[in-house]
Amino acid sequence: MSERETNALIGSDKVDGTAVYGADQKKIGSVERVMIDKLSGKVAYAVISYGGFLGMGEDHNPTPWSNLKYDTNLGGYLVNLTKDQLEKAPK
Amino acid sequence: MSERETNALIGSDKVDGTAVYGADQKKIGSVERVMIDKLSGKVAYAVISYGGFLGMGEDHNPTPWSNLKYDTNLGGYLVNLTKDQLEKAPK
Repeated sequence: MSERETNALIGSDKVDGTAVYGADQKKIGSVERVMIDKLSGKVAYAVISYGGFLGMGEDHNPTPWSNLKYDTNLGGYLVNLTKDQLEKAPK
Repeated sequence: MSERETNALIGSDKVDGTAVYGADQKKIGSVERVMIDKLSGKVAYAVISYGGFLGMGEDHNPTPWSNLKYDTNLGGYLVNLTKDQLEKAPK
């Protein structure tokens, strides 16, 4: 019960802070947190933080949980967009 | 997007570490993490850690997400069991 990951499940504390890579395999940012629906217990979306320096000027972008594909080679989540697209997304 | 809580949603980083109180309103432990189903994005269960000292000798108990009811007066989750029941639960 103290495991942070099984085949089917992953712990919230292991997801938070994990690096996120864009479609071009360049690092975009990291998972800041996942937002959980209080009633259903379903993850509504993950918040990716990107840009900024030492916590200042960071931007945040919500992405559906299903968009995060863990890539064992990269050691992080691969999402189907680039940093450029992320920065141009409406905030 | 940088909010950790809305009316309907709560951030994983806000859930982790939150105190858990038993049916008798006494503190049982705290939420160590929630375990998320990788495919569906649904919280399978929350892991409550209890007992121990300075991180040693802690025990862990899984509880369904739906069992955690946030109590604004207590400032933590209220679950329908006591510390005694928790300690006697099969591990």
